[in-house]
Amino acid sequence: MKTAFTYPSLHEIRDARARIDNLVHRTPILTSSSIDNLAGCSLFFKCENLQKVGAFKARGASNAVLKLPPEQMVAGVATHSSGNHAAALARAATVAGVKSYIVMPSTSPAIKKLAVREYGGEIHLCEPTLEARESMLADIVEKTGATFIHPYDNADVIEGQATCALEIWEEEISLNALLTPVGGGGLLGGTALSTHYLSPSCLVFGAEPTGADDAYRSFNAGQRIPMKNPNTIADGLLTSLGEKNWALIRDFVEDILPVSDEEIIASMRLVYERLKMVIEPSCAVPLAAVLRNREIFAGKRVGIILSGGNVDLAKLPF
Amino acid sequence: MKTAFTYPSLHEIRDARARIDNLVHRTPILTSSSIDNLAGCSLFFKCENLQKVGAFKARGASNAVLKLPPEQMVAGVATHSSGNHAAALARAATVAGVKSYIVMPSTSPAIKKLAVREYGGEIHLCEPTLEARESMLADIVEKTGATFIHPYDNADVIEGQATCALEIWEEEISLNALLTPVGGGGLLGGTALSTHYLSPSCLVFGAEPTGADDAYRSFNAGQRIPMKNPNTIADGLLTSLGEKNWALIRDFVEDILPVSDEEIIASMRLVYERLKMVIEPSCAVPLAAVLRNREIFAGKRVGIILSGGNVDLAKLPF
Repeated sequence: MKTAFTYPSLHEIRDARARIDNLVHRTPILTSSSIDNLAGCSLFFKCENLQKVGAFKARGASNAVLKLPPEQMVAGVATHSSGNHAAALARAATVAGVKSYIVMPSTSPAIKKLAVREYGGEIHLCEPTLEARESMLADIVEKTGATFIHPYDNADVIEGQATCALEIWEEEISLNALLTPVGGGGLLGGTALSTHYLSPSCLVFGAEPTGADDAYRSFNAGQRIPMKNPNTIADGLLTSLGEKNWALIRDFVEDILPVSDEEIIASMRLVYERLKMVIEPSCAVPLAAVLRNREIFAGKRVGIILSGGNVDLAKLPF
Repeated sequence: MKTAFTYPSLHEIRDARARIDNLVHRTPILTSSSIDNLAGCSLFFKCENLQKVGAFKARGASNAVLKLPPEQMVAGVATHSSGNHAAALARAATVAGVKSYIVMPSTSPAIKKLAVREYGGEIHLCEPTLEARESMLADIVEKTGATFIHPYDNADVIEGQATCALEIWEEEISLNALLTPVGGGGLLGGTALSTHYLSPSCLVFGAEPTGADDAYRSFNAGQRIPMKNPNTIADGLLTSLGEKNWALIRDFVEDILPVSDEEIIASMRLVYERLKMVIEPSCAVPLAAVLRNREIFAGKRVGIILSGGNVDLAKLPF
């Protein structure tokens, strides 16, 4: 099977980390002995909920904006996103001194819309369908000349997300397994790529809600199967895998582990109670996968990327 | 005025840090540009909500237990506490292989009672009055020979709490001001002492709920005035200043800043939304004091010790 794109090299991922250094935090890695006791393994939480804009998306968006040639950058950037990529792109554009046009579904949480506005993005609300997003975005790009920065199916975005696992490996933490949530596959693909370069014996897993399990079905079918009518509390994981992301997952990921919304909510609560971290539902999916698949991880050293913390506190599910 | 006790030296505080090194986390210091923008100053949050047992109390309790002579340690330790010191002492005793007897008011949050049990403490519930606590504790000490470790009016506990600010100064972060909540005064006294030794130009402030403002009234009267009938959402700050703590506060603290419960709740929410940290109400008091007294802190570099994160998630006040 042909490769969908030329994968970023380790050198390029390291360059990306240096490029975005002033725009993102080097987030801490935390542990909890009480969660370890419950899970039967040693867990290492990389806290991207503490990242700028409250999610790992700050990495990819910053990298993609800063890599644009100057003559292209002046016309601004545009995207469609359910939230975290939107805020991240708006912020990266504002820092670079250019305009950002953000197409968001009208159903996005209030806190995510507010964040985009505060970071200086120009919001264009649309119906919550992929078709409505894409058509509104195409109109904006045609009218303004802005560059479309896809939330995940974009090599520079993937290269940026890969800097998160790069930081784990640079701290020389030894892990047997590393898990991330999977929606479009930007974080999972980037994580798998960095891990392939720097810790190839570490197995990388994607964790996914059963109500949006296109990565699970794609992985088992050996071909990309888009998601129709996703339904899960994990509102950051409703999208289908991108083409580039699928290629990385197919080549470098060990398995995709599905979990129910009930398991996601229970893990989310555990993170609030024991790790004292505010996270969004999507972010709890990997811990839920570890707790559901104890036999895989028993006694192992297991990393989890906590992907984001942008949640409507008035709507906590517990 | 005579000094209530011989203050721990800098050397002794450093020894305490080494003594408890395997029992506590070196907690991270986090920043948030969006909270900085709201506050009009640069804030540095020392995250003791991420400490073992979810609060700075792990420091003082561990230090006090480990300093006991072996022949005294075998009979165990005892205390009365509304919660975090209770869990911290139970854990320190269990790690040291001795028994702990914990007198708790029956009104303590369920999560705090559960924590004490999980850490191996033997709980004795009493009426929620200081008299009931002290009388039950005296009975236990007489019967078992256990050593009473006071939650704050104890030199070894204060020495342990002083290790928190020690870590800030060891990271060579320059601050103009440093704030902690004040209940019994263990954290504030220890913080003021370490700061006096290592960064004497930094002003130390205590922040206190108006509904439990004995430190504020004591400070302004120049003598210790106990609190009667405290009433505040900050359930960790209901106690009156200890004698030793009052001496340190009188000698080394710049001022005590009172705030209302409404201000505490608003700051608590801000920390959840912007810093992505789970904190308990008491922990939000210093940020509330910074937001209420902008003129004191405008443009300054201001440290805040986030004291703890043990909160009943079912009872969040927002």
